[in-house]
Amino acid sequence: MTLNPADEAFALRLRETLPEQVFRSPEPRYMEEPRGRWAGQCGVLALPRSVEEVSALVAAAAAARVPVVPYGGGTGLVGGQVMPEGPAPMIVSLERMNAIRGIYPTENVMIAEAGAILADVQLAAAEAGRLFPLSLAAEGTARIGGNLSTNAGGTAVLRYGNARDLCLGLEAVLPDGRIWHGLSRLRKDNTGYDLRNLLVGAEGTLGIITAATLKLYPQPAARGTAIFVVRDPQAAIELLAMARDQLGEGVSAFELIAGQGLRFLAETLPDVRQPFDTPPDWCVLIELGLARGLDPEAALADLFEAALEAGLANDGLIAQSQAQRDDFWSVREHIPEGNRRIGAVSSHDISVPISLIPEFIARGNQIVAGLGGFRVNCFGHLGDGNLHYNVFPEPGRSKADHANQVGAVKRAVHDLVHEMGGSVSAEHGIGRLKVEDLERYSDPVRLDALRAIKAALDPLGIMNPGAVLRT
Amino acid sequence: MTLNPADEAFALRLRETLPEQVFRSPEPRYMEEPRGRWAGQCGVLALPRSVEEVSALVAAAAAARVPVVPYGGGTGLVGGQVMPEGPAPMIVSLERMNAIRGIYPTENVMIAEAGAILADVQLAAAEAGRLFPLSLAAEGTARIGGNLSTNAGGTAVLRYGNARDLCLGLEAVLPDGRIWHGLSRLRKDNTGYDLRNLLVGAEGTLGIITAATLKLYPQPAARGTAIFVVRDPQAAIELLAMARDQLGEGVSAFELIAGQGLRFLAETLPDVRQPFDTPPDWCVLIELGLARGLDPEAALADLFEAALEAGLANDGLIAQSQAQRDDFWSVREHIPEGNRRIGAVSSHDISVPISLIPEFIARGNQIVAGLGGFRVNCFGHLGDGNLHYNVFPEPGRSKADHANQVGAVKRAVHDLVHEMGGSVSAEHGIGRLKVEDLERYSDPVRLDALRAIKAALDPLGIMNPGAVLRT
Repeated sequence: MTLNPADEAFALRLRETLPEQVFRSPEPRYMEEPRGRWAGQCGVLALPRSVEEVSALVAAAAAARVPVVPYGGGTGLVGGQVMPEGPAPMIVSLERMNAIRGIYPTENVMIAEAGAILADVQLAAAEAGRLFPLSLAAEGTARIGGNLSTNAGGTAVLRYGNARDLCLGLEAVLPDGRIWHGLSRLRKDNTGYDLRNLLVGAEGTLGIITAATLKLYPQPAARGTAIFVVRDPQAAIELLAMARDQLGEGVSAFELIAGQGLRFLAETLPDVRQPFDTPPDWCVLIELGLARGLDPEAALADLFEAALEAGLANDGLIAQSQAQRDDFWSVREHIPEGNRRIGAVSSHDISVPISLIPEFIARGNQIVAGLGGFRVNCFGHLGDGNLHYNVFPEPGRSKADHANQVGAVKRAVHDLVHEMGGSVSAEHGIGRLKVEDLERYSDPVRLDALRAIKAALDPLGIMNPGAVLRT
Repeated sequence: MTLNPADEAFALRLRETLPEQVFRSPEPRYMEEPRGRWAGQCGVLALPRSVEEVSALVAAAAAARVPVVPYGGGTGLVGGQVMPEGPAPMIVSLERMNAIRGIYPTENVMIAEAGAILADVQLAAAEAGRLFPLSLAAEGTARIGGNLSTNAGGTAVLRYGNARDLCLGLEAVLPDGRIWHGLSRLRKDNTGYDLRNLLVGAEGTLGIITAATLKLYPQPAARGTAIFVVRDPQAAIELLAMARDQLGEGVSAFELIAGQGLRFLAETLPDVRQPFDTPPDWCVLIELGLARGLDPEAALADLFEAALEAGLANDGLIAQSQAQRDDFWSVREHIPEGNRRIGAVSSHDISVPISLIPEFIARGNQIVAGLGGFRVNCFGHLGDGNLHYNVFPEPGRSKADHANQVGAVKRAVHDLVHEMGGSVSAEHGIGRLKVEDLERYSDPVRLDALRAIKAALDPLGIMNPGAVLRT
């Protein structure tokens, strides 16, 4: 199906039915993305203020066969928010639809518009005495509609699930411009196919999420944070099992940190306070959120003692204050910035079955070493089996020196992940970066089903063309 | 699209490619369902032993345009498992595919075949020191494939979610007979649309689930059970919020029980040991599963004291032994049997936003009273907003006396549920019983999308025709 650009004639037609204020000349930021791999295009930039305006915009695009790129906070890492090729699209930014429409503390429910910034959603929940647990580095910029469209992960998945698991209902504009009013506040509703979960994670290719019903949780009565030095990744996994046996759902986060990451930090961000004078090869950051009647520091001390006895941990620090807790988390949260300053040859957002993590790291390191002189920083959400396995040049060399090896490194790592039953995009999505990976690694029967779904719901192919599936 | 019956010629063709042992002459139970509303038909009964055999069966049905009815434990309450009209189908029972293929305690993961009985799945998890939390009255007969296909609920949804939330991956045969190998053991995998959640809850109309990766949980270190007498449903809701504030995820179940239900029990099942000499108007059954270091009995005593002080509860019993815990649960679990013995005029498996439950009950009772002399037993999963709102004749009359009012009662209750943003099928599904309800109450834009998805994935319309969507 041939698409047409969002040209001057289309812009004029839009202005016949929509108010002037909906449109703005596009600033460069709408055509950029954080990793600087693509330059997007923009024929028309629309900033609707209501679902009805979104509906009118999409209906007009459908009538004119004009591509539509939904835009949230612009923090996606796989190019889902920029359309560099084909006819110039209409970008529909949800930033003005940022209201919290309602909070129902008794129900542990909030209704937020798609353009609400994640940190604001967290804050609104906290002000109502509740927790919205989705938490990730970009939370000050990312918007909840984008978080849902990419099924964002982050650091609290172990306990609370991905963005998908935190959504009860949606309001969305489907590719024909019609509005689905599905802002259910229900915990149970078995009436037909799960359209909600089809739109969640579809990266804007099946419609535009305009608002969502979100699950809230009780706030833990007390929190605790510790860093334990572990022998190796296998010990980290056994420690996680031990922690969950002792503390059940009380384990909120369990992050693996490699010595390489700490050394990168020391080199590039020396002001970040490090927990150990000499970076250990492996450590884990443990976050607890416990119910009333339990003391997180005591629980962490018990855990450390048991881990020491079992030979799983040989050193550890338990935060004694909020400031120390912040310090520990600051280390974890600055690792990506340290990586950026070193400059990765290739980064991989992968997951494997949790029990296979040690084997994956060992085989991955061997494979990467076979391709040349590299350093690996492997870190991330161990409790979810989700690792960021990033490959760097050796000291004195830059990623430019390895430009011709990027493809080989990525392919080798992804092949290993696939062979081990893993995913080559654990939390970032497919966007435009991983369309070929999806084709290569997805079960072919599933891939055909995904294509059939796309054709059924967006027969004109106007929604975010080129993302997820090849047009 | 015209379908053909699974006739003798079709049966002969199947036997050319599949072994004789796959087929058996159908016993009556495959054409019955628990409520006795429908008599099914069966042209061919197939009992495949592998996904490859399921694949061959469905491929043959697709080639011959023969309807296929997938069959699990046969415990569904909405007629999804019986096809009373149209060309006689091939029934594909998964009962022989009942293996536990693997348990991965470190990962909190199990892979089970669709025909595994739910109680056996629970047992296998327990033997590995883990919890598979899905729990419902029919667990000794229901099979996990059917539980997933209907997105079963039950008593632990408050804490652990519906069947949907307990599934990480699927192996399934799609309507063209091809096998989707999707038994992922991953917690995070953002590679394209969520086909898994489309098949979960599709009631066999989009394919046949043959195996599933299931989430396991740590077993709570200690459990506790109590029954608190509450002033009214509003007090029950406030008590739930109080319990979750104090105990976080430790609240595993929170069930509302009406005095009417206890009186029905006393009348029809006098051997069931009742907690109170005089049934209170409203009480709640609370189940805790706590992590190490917490004493459930003490926690329940604290909760009772706070509830008493806040005027939410005025009497209560905390189980002091496993036997007493079993007694309390026995009361809850026998309520449906008491109902059956009284004989309901109309039963409703509904959900509303939790904070609206008191209003729903008050308005519902008023509406029902306006339709005639009835008794209402309203009970169920209060923590999920899921109530079984069942309407009974007055003493001395039978449901047959009200046969001509069934439709009016059901319609009035469902209209109220819909008006209040609720669901007319919270946990049982659509099946064949509620196809018209889905058409009446679903958002029309969503309904069109569901039809488009069905047409895209099952263009011949062979999968469980007449269930969920009208053919």
